[in-house]
Amino acid sequence: MSDLIQKLKWRYATKKMNPAKAVPQEKVDRILEAIRLTATSSGLQPYEVLVVTNAEIREKIKAIGWNQAQITEGSHLLVFAAWDNYTAERINMMFDLTNDERGFKNEGWENYRNMLLSTYPARDAETNYQHAARQAYIGLGTALVAAAEEQVDSTPMEGFDPAALDDILGLRAKGLRSVVILPLGYREEDKDWLVNLKKVRRPTAKFVTEVK
Amino acid sequence: MSDLIQKLKWRYATKKMNPAKAVPQEKVDRILEAIRLTATSSGLQPYEVLVVTNAEIREKIKAIGWNQAQITEGSHLLVFAAWDNYTAERINMMFDLTNDERGFKNEGWENYRNMLLSTYPARDAETNYQHAARQAYIGLGTALVAAAEEQVDSTPMEGFDPAALDDILGLRAKGLRSVVILPLGYREEDKDWLVNLKKVRRPTAKFVTEVK
Repeated sequence: MSDLIQKLKWRYATKKMNPAKAVPQEKVDRILEAIRLTATSSGLQPYEVLVVTNAEIREKIKAIGWNQAQITEGSHLLVFAAWDNYTAERINMMFDLTNDERGFKNEGWENYRNMLLSTYPARDAETNYQHAARQAYIGLGTALVAAAEEQVDSTPMEGFDPAALDDILGLRAKGLRSVVILPLGYREEDKDWLVNLKKVRRPTAKFVTEVK
Repeated sequence: MSDLIQKLKWRYATKKMNPAKAVPQEKVDRILEAIRLTATSSGLQPYEVLVVTNAEIREKIKAIGWNQAQITEGSHLLVFAAWDNYTAERINMMFDLTNDERGFKNEGWENYRNMLLSTYPARDAETNYQHAARQAYIGLGTALVAAAEEQVDSTPMEGFDPAALDDILGLRAKGLRSVVILPLGYREEDKDWLVNLKKVRRPTAKFVTEVK
């Protein structure tokens, strides 16, 4: 079995986290670094990650998050917040950064920039936000693996009021909209109803089709 | 540096794949297994993966995929195809499978099933498809790591005509819609303009915000 498959079998959507056990900062930092390094469409990285440790703010988030206890019983809450739109400024920011870091301009890359500039900002903001939000899910998929590698538990959550979360964190003023949240912490095994239940997935024959 | 971070630094959106070098089937199988095992919302796994090796079909896909050469120069093309809608039948299929595999019914889990049954199928199909498509991106994020673990190159692609791809693969008749595609293969280093260029990401200070 590959390391990755072992990690994916170990992880599960932890239902009960131990509030007395905090995730060490260096582990959180490596999880964030993995998210930062993974792919996004055209390399635009059209989202940000907020790491909420403040207890009072996490209580407020729990209240608009179906009262899911992991939000406050974990030690860190990751909030994936996507760009509310693609603007020329944002696209140019990433292409300029790329040119600066690489130390030269590439004609094909500049043509690609211009293609994006002529298409993305002209689309409606909702379409662009939805596209950006999908990229955040690549980050989420990476974060689940990264947490498992650190033997840190995590619980991906869509069950919250996104507009209320945007308010609590002041996201709209930053041109961001919340997408998905991920508490990090440690499972409290004797109090978690899910920890010992079998992980169920459709069999490969019902999930994968070969087109030969 | 963690293993995962090393893998994420190694991977890149390969621009030139070696058409003479096929990915061994056991590596493809482990990549697919990682996708199958990762998380999805409520565990519904609302997508499937098609593995296209047929040369003629891949030529057709290339033609509606901006002629990106990796589609035919890789050895395997993964197509992530999301459910076109959430139906009671699909929701019940996953909850029944879970009960069968675990060997018992759990009251909380049944209440959760009923909550989904009373909300998802009532929403419009487009909303449900968009939600399902996001889950496929968790799979995509996992696939990128899984391929890197196998030292297999991959190139995530959104640049194709989804309706045309649905036609080529007969997806609509199966209740599926294409989301994103991922050629797998091996980089041809001396012909790939991107392979030696620096991977550029926004610095952590512009990607991560701490809320203490």
